[in-house]
Amino acid sequence: MYAVILAGGGGTRLWPLSRRSRPKPFLPLLGAESLFQRTLARIQPLIDRSAIYVVAEARLLPLAAEQAPWLSAQQLLPEPVGRNTAAAVALAALAIDRPPDDVMIVLPADAHIVDEDGFRLALATAAGVAQREFLVVIGVTPSGPQTGYGYVVGAGAGRPGEVARFVEKPDRDRAQALLAAPEGAWWNAGVFVWRRDAVLASLETHAPAIVGPLRTALATGQSLAETYPDLPAVSIDHALLEPASVEGQVRVVPAEFGWSDVGSWSALHAELARLQPAQAARLVGIGRTEDIGSEDVLVHSSSGRLVVTVGLRGTIVVDTPDVLLVCDAQRAQEVRSIVDRLVQAKETDYL
Amino acid sequence: MYAVILAGGGGTRLWPLSRRSRPKPFLPLLGAESLFQRTLARIQPLIDRSAIYVVAEARLLPLAAEQAPWLSAQQLLPEPVGRNTAAAVALAALAIDRPPDDVMIVLPADAHIVDEDGFRLALATAAGVAQREFLVVIGVTPSGPQTGYGYVVGAGAGRPGEVARFVEKPDRDRAQALLAAPEGAWWNAGVFVWRRDAVLASLETHAPAIVGPLRTALATGQSLAETYPDLPAVSIDHALLEPASVEGQVRVVPAEFGWSDVGSWSALHAELARLQPAQAARLVGIGRTEDIGSEDVLVHSSSGRLVVTVGLRGTIVVDTPDVLLVCDAQRAQEVRSIVDRLVQAKETDYL
Repeated sequence: MYAVILAGGGGTRLWPLSRRSRPKPFLPLLGAESLFQRTLARIQPLIDRSAIYVVAEARLLPLAAEQAPWLSAQQLLPEPVGRNTAAAVALAALAIDRPPDDVMIVLPADAHIVDEDGFRLALATAAGVAQREFLVVIGVTPSGPQTGYGYVVGAGAGRPGEVARFVEKPDRDRAQALLAAPEGAWWNAGVFVWRRDAVLASLETHAPAIVGPLRTALATGQSLAETYPDLPAVSIDHALLEPASVEGQVRVVPAEFGWSDVGSWSALHAELARLQPAQAARLVGIGRTEDIGSEDVLVHSSSGRLVVTVGLRGTIVVDTPDVLLVCDAQRAQEVRSIVDRLVQAKETDYL
Repeated sequence: MYAVILAGGGGTRLWPLSRRSRPKPFLPLLGAESLFQRTLARIQPLIDRSAIYVVAEARLLPLAAEQAPWLSAQQLLPEPVGRNTAAAVALAALAIDRPPDDVMIVLPADAHIVDEDGFRLALATAAGVAQREFLVVIGVTPSGPQTGYGYVVGAGAGRPGEVARFVEKPDRDRAQALLAAPEGAWWNAGVFVWRRDAVLASLETHAPAIVGPLRTALATGQSLAETYPDLPAVSIDHALLEPASVEGQVRVVPAEFGWSDVGSWSALHAELARLQPAQAARLVGIGRTEDIGSEDVLVHSSSGRLVVTVGLRGTIVVDTPDVLLVCDAQRAQEVRSIVDRLVQAKETDYL
């Protein structure tokens, strides 16, 4: 078995802490280690250090090497630019020299997992299923009809473990219906397990526009800088798993291990509040903080300044050296719009 | 006529912008000029520059001289320490060498006034009344039953202009009752007009413990540093005007000139919103700000940073280089408690 960590995610909804120069995976959001460091540590009881690989934009690999100095140059796979997860997985499947029947585990670098033993157990189970040449997705048991996640939908009682389809970010009614349906639905955590030969064969069938040019470039020693930017930027879910599920090649391993994508300030607030359950008011202060009478507030200060809050409810305060964000917790998703606006205005210093 | 500006107020409810080293009067809160500078400019059509005096703690006088370089050393009266307004007024009445029947106007340095012509008209009217040796207080027509102000209460229809008593910060019910009563009630803006001899005589009667030691020190050339700290720290309202009103010596000149004591972030927000009435959402941004969908919010940034707000309601954000305050606008008065807490903790850097 070997592991491929995808360390690409921009984490713009965690702006202004998550920046282009140090995006979400490389931030110590939940403890002293970064999400990337915790991702590496979490799989090591299962996979030897020498069998862990990292795919990320070339500009981010120095950060990865700084945070995990034991990674050798061969374990770091640079992408000239980010082209979403299908290209990253195809690059890893082609370029990492492993036996065809070796099992490859694909993991995002920026998730939080409470029950790490449970997570590894799910991976080991999935590896067993993957031996039979299925494409396996880990399905997280949903705790509610979340609209921000992708869902893996089962094929029904007659075909246990089989995935019928994927549903990306449903609205609330549709999410409710998915959870109520008898065939089962799970959150797609972006964790995939498959044999190297199985995923390569499926990529040849369903994503020839990605795997073809990459294979040629790697075989001829051509620079990826010429090939990579022209690859279609699509997710592995969309490019591979959706069509493969139609053909009955995808299996789900359901599991419950306290998973969060830490995808927004509200999600991070929920995880931080869970780590300090004694605080009934869900008042979380990171950095030098003082408060009078606030409830359900996250203050995250990385500026060294004193942050004082008075009487707030459901508010996120993120204090960085050059930008301050104060946001209604219900609208934490809209932080992305601010980033879009700054991109439009070419305010690159703040990105 | 001559004017005495009392530039002592700490303005702790405008913390963290108002600091011990640069308190509220010396901040440009409403426009390019500080409240102190505007106070000086506002009275100059009525009083010659050479007849304007400033009383403040010695440590603050360099700030006063910096902001009004035309003030001569004789026009700056240093207090070794602040001992409230009764001592400041007594010092000015004794130490400034003017004829006994000269009319002295006492003004706080930290109020905001919209109708400056109306204000000067009220002062001129008050000066006429003061010629008859009354102690005159300017009474601001109340716009509602505010609980944060002191009230001047009339003596009734049979004694026009006479002040019967003073009420300091009544509760809401009492404020309502004051406004409804037939004898009339006005806000005490801390603006007083009286002849030098009249106020000195009244101080001799009602505040001998203040005026006595001061007179001795000034006559013998003794240092104020020895005398001043031992003086009782009481307001001129309490020490002089309350007992004098019982004796029928106090008159009120009612006026309406758009007055605010700018006493809290909410009060400042109201004044700033009034200056930009086109903004129906009362969204006020001072400094570099961006917003999505907030209403009734004041952002005051003096740190040079970008401040981003998303979906806030009724919130005050004050961003300074070393402290950030985020406060429910309804609880703006509690900022003082934070300052008290920092004093207790001897966090002098933040005061």
